[in-house]
This record gives sequence, structure tokens and C-alpha cells, in this order.
Amino acid sequence: MGYFRENIERMSGYVPGFQPKSASVIKLNTNENPYPPSPKVMEAIRRISPERLRRYPEPLGDTFRPAAAGLLGVEPAQILCTNGGDDLLSICTRAFCDGRRPMAYAQPTYSLYPVLAQLQGCRTIEPARTGNWAKELAEINAPLTIVCNPNAPTTDFTAVEELGTLAEALDGVLLIDEAYADFAGDNAIRLVRDHDNVIVLRSMSKGYSLAGLRFGYGVARPDLIEGLCKVKDSYNVDAVAIAAATAAILDQPYFLSNVEMIKAERQRLTESLRLLGLDVPDSRTNFVLARCPSGSAKEIYEALAQRDIYVRYFDLPGLEDKLRITVGTPEQNKTLVKALQKIVAGEGTNS
Amino acid sequence: MGYFRENIERMSGYVPGFQPKSASVIKLNTNENPYPPSPKVMEAIRRISPERLRRYPEPLGDTFRPAAAGLLGVEPAQILCTNGGDDLLSICTRAFCDGRRPMAYAQPTYSLYPVLAQLQGCRTIEPARTGNWAKELAEINAPLTIVCNPNAPTTDFTAVEELGTLAEALDGVLLIDEAYADFAGDNAIRLVRDHDNVIVLRSMSKGYSLAGLRFGYGVARPDLIEGLCKVKDSYNVDAVAIAAATAAILDQPYFLSNVEMIKAERQRLTESLRLLGLDVPDSRTNFVLARCPSGSAKEIYEALAQRDIYVRYFDLPGLEDKLRITVGTPEQNKTLVKALQKIVAGEGTNS
Repeated sequence: MGYFRENIERMSGYVPGFQPKSASVIKLNTNENPYPPSPKVMEAIRRISPERLRRYPEPLGDTFRPAAAGLLGVEPAQILCTNGGDDLLSICTRAFCDGRRPMAYAQPTYSLYPVLAQLQGCRTIEPARTGNWAKELAEINAPLTIVCNPNAPTTDFTAVEELGTLAEALDGVLLIDEAYADFAGDNAIRLVRDHDNVIVLRSMSKGYSLAGLRFGYGVARPDLIEGLCKVKDSYNVDAVAIAAATAAILDQPYFLSNVEMIKAERQRLTESLRLLGLDVPDSRTNFVLARCPSGSAKEIYEALAQRDIYVRYFDLPGLEDKLRITVGTPEQNKTLVKALQKIVAGEGTNS
Repeated sequence: MGYFRENIERMSGYVPGFQPKSASVIKLNTNENPYPPSPKVMEAIRRISPERLRRYPEPLGDTFRPAAAGLLGVEPAQILCTNGGDDLLSICTRAFCDGRRPMAYAQPTYSLYPVLAQLQGCRTIEPARTGNWAKELAEINAPLTIVCNPNAPTTDFTAVEELGTLAEALDGVLLIDEAYADFAGDNAIRLVRDHDNVIVLRSMSKGYSLAGLRFGYGVARPDLIEGLCKVKDSYNVDAVAIAAATAAILDQPYFLSNVEMIKAERQRLTESLRLLGLDVPDSRTNFVLARCPSGSAKEIYEALAQRDIYVRYFDLPGLEDKLRITVGTPEQNKTLVKALQKIVAGEGTNS
């Protein structure tokens, strides 16, 4: 073609997890919540008036901001609404990075970060996520440092105090991607008070079962939020999403019981997989990362897919021997474990 | 702060039109459609299932693509769904422009283009929209040329054949921003067949009354669309927006009658304003650009706002003596014209 910028021509783009058309498959590959959103969300959507669709939406999601701020103990001006968490990642990349301003994060982590860097034409610095990687990130001292916490796809949680030390050491921005924080038992919102360079990312896709709606938000000091507003699309979140996300975050009893069910089921799934001989570290997310017997991860992934059970396999360094499995409903997890039992026992793909 | 890239620190950001909280004001300042969306849109939204919200949406809006393609006589693979038309403008800027690849457009035009260029750190080349500006754009021959057609805020329409000649002359991409094409009587979709460098932008905000929903799309040759997919967010349009936009575009009878009402009312409004002594060129959009008696545009704008009637005033070269007025309902337009009558007659702001 030759019409595109060179870095766009060269890159292959981010590949989202496979979305099977059929509703009958067991879909444990994109970390969706297995339970439906709060009934109050459905009510809010049914109550949307034609007038709300006809008019442009609130540019800053002013209905959602106080609801989230009240819950987190911050000011509404500290909340930036975004079209999913990915929109905030994109906004931060465009705000802080360019040819002379690199991005740093420890690998393995969310595979979208390098894609956004490539789009922006900025360099990435990627120490291995082993030993004292947080200290390494502090020494690299990039204009934008990203830590996914709990980390995808490794499921582990870095102590918030350690992230505070990192924020203190950095001259640039520390973006803490808390897409999975709802399942972690702790979070970094308190760092925003003491650090003017910390941005915390949140998503409504996981804990609130709203992946289809595209709603996320950032939490930071007001002047940082104001700068990010210059980079976002004028109307980046739509009127229906604002209404539904607000209803969701205000229904904390539903949210908390949903999260507790997933955490309990995560424990049961982890134990079942360990009994099958897979190596599964304790997870602080809504998925587990299971190391399979040497060389078999891709084969197991394919054998599961043949049984209409979808998990995620990454052909990436350090991940080739592992499967990322979303915590599903008790029934889904039982079906998965039974299928794995047969596959690991060498009965092949015919059930 | 010092955390942001220099071009972000320096810029002031795009300022969307004022959105008054009260529903009782007459709002003719952001070119919204005065009529509600199709009842079929409301039905599609009410029918959204919890399951559709729980799961990630179609990454490419695969439900919408064949509906739009069928209407326009192109292939589904030629449709790129975006989070409003602005999302497509942003995607194109990031795909085609950078420090060495400038953007060109004739001024005055949509004021978001220079903001997107500044965000991307690319130069803009801005010939005046007088004389043979299309030929000038051909000579400039930028990697990305944008023509808004019909043009905002000048309301005039450039013949599609002239745009075809421009596309032929360019080595880069020609993005034809047809946000207002629904009211123009002609459009450039047919250019996509013969030119592999043409992208046509469409919006559901104006003709389909869905400004609150954020849904737009691009039409181009499949390989150009494929390249743009690498730049867009993985899930840039949400499940509710896909369902609603599909219902809207499939209800052509409703759409066509809505557009005809606005065109008829546009004619009446234009004539009424001319009778008041304002200079109003024939418009091919859903708004008019009225030149006010020398030096009075800003005063008239303020006097209208005091009466809770909002129009748009741009303090920009060539626009300081003009008001951009959205075509409202017959009642809204009558109220506006009566208020203008009093203001122009020098009765001041007290009715």
C-alpha cells in the first residue's frame, strides 16, 4: 500500500481473544465475568430516553464521576472516564510517550502495552519480571512506567507499598493497571493521595460483568486528569455506558457477592488443577495461569478447543508451557477439569 | 507538572459545544438532530440481554457491517466501525501522520483537525478555502488530506467529481469527512470503488439522531480498512451501540422522513434569517452559517444565551462575524427568529 506510517506497516496489531459465535461453548479465554451484571444495570439501560440518545453525552461522564469518587474516597475531578481500560492505556501512551520518551514495564505482562508503544513510535524497555524488577524499573526511570497489578497473565500481586517506593523514585508517571484489582483484596488508590505521578486504571469489564459495554476509568491527581482530558476524544464514553456503569458501581452489594463467588470458585479450580498435576500459583485475579507438563500446553489448548472449551494460549517467551484459564461458573469449571483429566490421562480429544 | 510530552503541555485541547443541564433551553449549538431516534433503536436497546453486556463485543462490529454495506453497495469488509466519527479522525491521524508526515486541509473547517495534528506532533498545511483550494491541496500532496464535505462550518458542498480529481492527484490518503452528508443530496461513496486512497467518514450522530451513542464508520477499500484496524482500540464500539446503530441504519423509512423534515425546515429558517438582514448561504448540512451585521455576532450570541437560546460562535479568523445555528424543530426555529428580531431591532436582552 505505502499509505501508512512505517511503524504501522511493520506491525501486526493486537489480536483479541477468540470470540466464538455459539453461546453453547465454554468460554474461559478472555477473562469475562461468568455472572450477569446487576439487575440495576439492566433497569438503567431500559430507562434510557430517546432524548439521551439524541443529544451528545456528558464529555467527562459527570454522572459517573461522583459515584466512583464517593466509593474510592477521592474527588470527582480525580476520575477520568474512558471507553474501556484500553482507552486509558492509549491516552497515556499518547500523552507521555514519543520517539524520545520511552515506556517501561516488566515482562511478561499485558500484551497490549508493546502494541500501543509501536503505534506511538516510542521505544519500550522491558526488564524480566524476576528478582527485583521494581527496583530495575526505578533505575530505568522512563517517562511512563506501567505496572499491571495484579499482573496479567501471571496472576501475582505486588505489595502496594513497593509500588509507592517505585512512584517515589520515578521522575515520570507510574500507571498502575488495576483491571483485575476487584479480585485482589488490596489496591493502590491510596497512593494517588501522596504521589502526583500515579495514575490508577480501573475497568468495569471484569468485576462488574460489563465487558460488552466498554467502560473504564483512571484515578489520579486533578491536574494530571486535566492534562489527559486534552488527549482523549471529546465524547469518549457514550450516554448508555455512563448510565449503566453508574448503576453498576452504585450496586456494591451485588458486586461484592459476585466477586466473592468468583474468589471461592478460583480456590476450588486451583486445587482441582493441582490435583491433575498442573503447577498453578495462587491467583489474585479472576483467572489462573496453569503450567502444563513439559511441551504439552499448546496440545492441551487444542484438545480443549475441540471439545468446545476455550482457554487462552500465548506463544510468547515464558508462557509457551502455560494456559490462562478464566474462572467460570462451578459447572463450567467442573466440565473443564473433567475434560483436562481425560486429556492429561492421554485419552486424546475424543470424549 | 512536566510529566506530559511538550506538544501536549503546550496545547489547550478541543472544547466541545456548551451542554446546558436544563432540558428547557433551546439548544441549537452542537448540530444535534431535533427529532428522536427511530423507535426501532429504542426497541433494540430494550432487548439487550445481560449476556451481551457480560461478554466482550464484536471487535469489528460484525452485525453492523453488512447492514451498512448493503445500504451503500459495498462489501462488509469495506466498513470500519468507530466510536463516533471523531474516533475515525483520530485513527487516521495516528495511521498516516507523524513528525515527517503532515496533514493538509483548507480553512475554515472542522476545528478538531488541528487539535488531532497537535496531539500527534504532525505539521498541518492549511490553505484558505477560497478560489481553487482543491487544486492547492493536490499540489501540497500531503500524506493525509482531509476534506469535510459538506463543509463545517461553511455549509457548502464540493462536487464529488472534483474530489475524485483530487483523489487521483494525491499520492497520500484523501479522507472525506461526510459527517453531514445525510443532508447534502449527494455523497462520495462511489469514489471508493475507483480510488484505493479514499476513506469516507460517516456519523450516526446527525441524520440518525444518535449523538449520545457514539457511532460512526469509515468506508474504504478492504486493505486500507485492514491497516486502520491495527490502529483502533481492540473493542472500540460497544455491544449496545452496535445493536442500536444497526437498528437505526436498517430503518431507512424513518431516517429519510426525518432528513426531509430537517431539509424543509432548513429552507424556512434560511429565508427567515435573510428577511432579518442576515447573510445566509444555502446550506447542505443540518445547520446554517449566518453572517451578522458588522461586529455584532458575539453580542447577538450572548443576547440569545441570556434568553436560553444557544447557538455556536467561533472566535476564529473568517468566523468572527458569523453564527452557526443548528436547524431545530419548527417551534424552536420560530422562537429563535423572534428573539433575533428583537435583538437586531435593538431591544436588547430583556424580552
